[in-house]
Amino acid sequence: MSASNQTLAYEVSPPPALPTFPLDQWYVAALGWELNDKPVGRTLLNKPVVLFRTADGQVAALEDRCCHRALPLSSGTLDGGGLRCGYHGLLFNAAGKCIEIPGQEKIPSKAKVPMYHVQERDQIVWIWFGSSAHPEPTCEPPAYDVHSSGKYLFDGDVYHYDAPYQLIHDNLMDLSHLGYVHLRTIGGNASIHMEAKMTVESEGDVVKVVRHMPNSTPPPTYSAAYPFKGTIDRWQEIEFHVSHLRIWTGAVDANTESLDDPERGGFHMRGFHGVTPETDTTSHYFWTMATNPETNHDEVKAKVIEQTALTFDEDKVVIEAQYQNMCRFGERPMIDIHVDVGANRARKIIESLRQANGA
Amino acid sequence: MSASNQTLAYEVSPPPALPTFPLDQWYVAALGWELNDKPVGRTLLNKPVVLFRTADGQVAALEDRCCHRALPLSSGTLDGGGLRCGYHGLLFNAAGKCIEIPGQEKIPSKAKVPMYHVQERDQIVWIWFGSSAHPEPTCEPPAYDVHSSGKYLFDGDVYHYDAPYQLIHDNLMDLSHLGYVHLRTIGGNASIHMEAKMTVESEGDVVKVVRHMPNSTPPPTYSAAYPFKGTIDRWQEIEFHVSHLRIWTGAVDANTESLDDPERGGFHMRGFHGVTPETDTTSHYFWTMATNPETNHDEVKAKVIEQTALTFDEDKVVIEAQYQNMCRFGERPMIDIHVDVGANRARKIIESLRQANGA
Amino acid sequence: MSASNQTLAYEVSPPPALPTFPLDQWYVAALGWELNDKPVGRTLLNKPVVLFRTADGQVAALEDRCCHRALPLSSGTLDGGGLRCGYHGLLFNAAGKCIEIPGQEKIPSKAKVPMYHVQERDQIVWIWFGSSAHPEPTCEPPAYDVHSSGKYLFDGDVYHYDAPYQLIHDNLMDLSHLGYVHLRTIGGNASIHMEAKMTVESEGDVVKVVRHMPNSTPPPTYSAAYPFKGTIDRWQEIEFHVSHLRIWTGAVDANTESLDDPERGGFHMRGFHGVTPETDTTSHYFWTMATNPETNHDEVKAKVIEQTALTFDEDKVVIEAQYQNMCRFGERPMIDIHVDVGANRARKIIESLRQANGA
Repeated sequence: MSASNQTLAYEVSPPPALPTFPLDQWYVAALGWELNDKPVGRTLLNKPVVLFRTADGQVAALEDRCCHRALPLSSGTLDGGGLRCGYHGLLFNAAGKCIEIPGQEKIPSKAKVPMYHVQERDQIVWIWFGSSAHPEPTCEPPAYDVHSSGKYLFDGDVYHYDAPYQLIHDNLMDLSHLGYVHLRTIGGNASIHMEAKMTVESEGDVVKVVRHMPNSTPPPTYSAAYPFKGTIDRWQEIEFHVSHLRIWTGAVDANTESLDDPERGGFHMRGFHGVTPETDTTSHYFWTMATNPETNHDEVKAKVIEQTALTFDEDKVVIEAQYQNMCRFGERPMIDIHVDVGANRARKIIESLRQANGA
Repeated sequence: MSASNQTLAYEVSPPPALPTFPLDQWYVAALGWELNDKPVGRTLLNKPVVLFRTADGQVAALEDRCCHRALPLSSGTLDGGGLRCGYHGLLFNAAGKCIEIPGQEKIPSKAKVPMYHVQERDQIVWIWFGSSAHPEPTCEPPAYDVHSSGKYLFDGDVYHYDAPYQLIHDNLMDLSHLGYVHLRTIGGNASIHMEAKMTVESEGDVVKVVRHMPNSTPPPTYSAAYPFKGTIDRWQEIEFHVSHLRIWTGAVDANTESLDDPERGGFHMRGFHGVTPETDTTSHYFWTMATNPETNHDEVKAKVIEQTALTFDEDKVVIEAQYQNMCRFGERPMIDIHVDVGANRARKIIESLRQANGA
Repeated sequence: MSASNQTLAYEVSPPPALPTFPLDQWYVAALGWELNDKPVGRTLLNKPVVLFRTADGQVAALEDRCCHRALPLSSGTLDGGGLRCGYHGLLFNAAGKCIEIPGQEKIPSKAKVPMYHVQERDQIVWIWFGSSAHPEPTCEPPAYDVHSSGKYLFDGDVYHYDAPYQLIHDNLMDLSHLGYVHLRTIGGNASIHMEAKMTVESEGDVVKVVRHMPNSTPPPTYSAAYPFKGTIDRWQEIEFHVSHLRIWTGAVDANTESLDDPERGGFHMRGFHGVTPETDTTSHYFWTMATNPETNHDEVKAKVIEQTALTFDEDKVVIEAQYQNMCRFGERPMIDIHVDVGANRARKIIESLRQANGA
């Protein structure tokens, strides 16, 4: 080992597993309301992208680099439906073609930047990262009816993670950590979480984990949001998709309704969790939380969003500390416990898609 | 590609072009008034240098490292015309010779630090970085009469850039960016900048770009500084030298004087722009701005300096964003447009001097 | 040299000397009062360690990584005499054995983390880093009677250094720097420090430097703490041990007592200086300062501690600047002067122990 390597060993030792990403997928690029009167620059799957909304309300995505002098187009301005560079004013349309060079009549045919396929659906902006075999999308982006049905109030945010995306999957696939990490909000009694009956099913690239916690004490967020009479029958239904998770949690008064009834009442929280790799070691986490207040709609919604944000702040602290520690220690065996079944199944799907990228 | 390389790829990918620097040149090391009762430490062309003023007012420059235990001499103190290390008190003269070791009679002949050739001229401190063929200066440092003629009021500052020096040249050689980057100060109408007639001449290592913008609207800084009656005839004369640029801009009331008359009146701004590489990827930018107020001298000067500083703040944001993006994307072809003629000629001169370093 | 190396050269050039550390030694891991109701995470000799106090008051140290999902155990909580991980609640005892996995009956035999040997003695927590030949301690940790004798009031703190440990040794072994670095506190007249008679003795792995400064002016800290009548006879006795230094300084009124009398009176400051490498290039500095106020005990002690902290702040600035400069310049010869005798002898001991590690 050379002197130089020794010096750097502590600071930049490689992480234990170097994820690449499944391609031929729609990933979340933005929440719809992020794109308004300014372009948004964001690195997605190692590609610097500028996202913007054109004059007719469509979303567009280009490589975030002016072809003239390499300035990020995301520091430019929306102008006449296109995107104008903030240095010398070159104007690009949604397809990446340069349509104006101020002070110059002829526009060289090489004056263009690559475009990406993006689509907005149910207020989520999806971007296609295809393999060389599938540069064009092979399907529609996922629907997310919760945003469109009118049955829920919702809001959300984008979090940046200094951790690779699969650690976020692990966290979301195993809600048993609520009893240790989220005591102040949605946690509640730790042993009830740990001893909850759990079923794990998978079909294709989807994994579903269901846990029921009958006769629980309502955790702080639940009590604040809903007039439960006493103990509650609580559920967690987690649906893993390659680019996002849908997590339906909630509760009814204990012994009043079946947790298998899809139309059951009570207090609901429906979370959308878009997990998009930024780089091999960092991630974007796009979340929305939808709820069904019985009364005081705005107030309850605001409370649920506030508590959800607090909860996700706590997760971020844990996951980033976990990743830093993985980097410090390098690749090392890990011990599995009972709660890891769902997360491990999701990892297998990702691994198999990585192997098959573009095949 | 190894796992470790993949991880680091995003953070530290090499910039697209790795400049080295023309040698056998006088570069700006400091503005004269920076050197008073304390030494100044500054890395110049990759060399850590300590600059100071001796008891008789001369400027001096040494390697910024005590030969005893490697402390930066720039954290020491001026003492009796020399520079005393702040750890164990060794005293060095302007030639780098140790002339006192407290508590020790004999001074070893090896107790010395390398010195650099520096000269102050017209309140600019110049330093010679010679090739092995020319360790001694082969000429006098440049004169800058604007500082000494008494015709102008001026002030200036030193900016640090996280970008290589040639990106600052590019920016200064092409003032067409004023219409997009500097709308709040010296910009004015973008299309007038872009469509201005431009002439580019070069002779030896000097490039001169002249642009005239007749019948323009005065930009904010101009209106604030001078009582123009209406539209103005505006000029920009840029003179590129290897280590600095001289930019003369200004305006007269439209159709009152010839812009070719070197003695023309109106409002003048004479900029001095010393661009000195700090490292391969970072730079020092030493600027002064001189103006000729008709009335309210101090107030107009203060206004012009304030607006100039704002303008250069804007440039710094753009240029550093540009460089970061160049690092993100790696080496890639760039498209030239009409405004790049002057900058490209300057780049050719630098390239040819780099090839010839010391020849 | 490749393009990439050139770019990085300035930022991460390797330090001139890459220390590894003598093994088979007790190093300071903590000051006793740091370990109370929370675990403390600390990297020591490149190993991330979590330190904690068990229910019965004993100190314990484990590898700072949960064997389940690699979270730092130092972000967990003390629980029932053990340490509980903050993610999924695994509970470890002081020997590193997992003794509870919430929600799971069987605990796999592999569920454990490595432990380190630690012992608390005289309010200092020592940790054994043994070679493969001596994983178990071969001796008791050092005693430090100053903390236990009841003759002194003391307090202390932990400082983090961005510099390798041997630069701190150098600094402490040569107190002649007091006259240049610590003028505001314990410095006093520079030439008296530099011209003080110094004796250097060594025996085994211990080096002792003694300096006497008769008839000195009391420095600010001394005057503030003790009612000296006029000039003072001042002493400095420095005892270097591989993992720590003991520095006894003080003064009596000039010409009143022999500085060779171990029971001499006057004003005393007894410093304990634990210097423990964190990594090859960073260090922990655990210090306590003990003094013997004649009157106003608490006030004088507080004053001495405050002044000591100020003094060590000044050292930290100098040593970190020195190390950054060593990194900037790379390996280069250094010139020795008269004051370096003690420090150089300490370096020889370290070097010889490094060569012999584990032999």
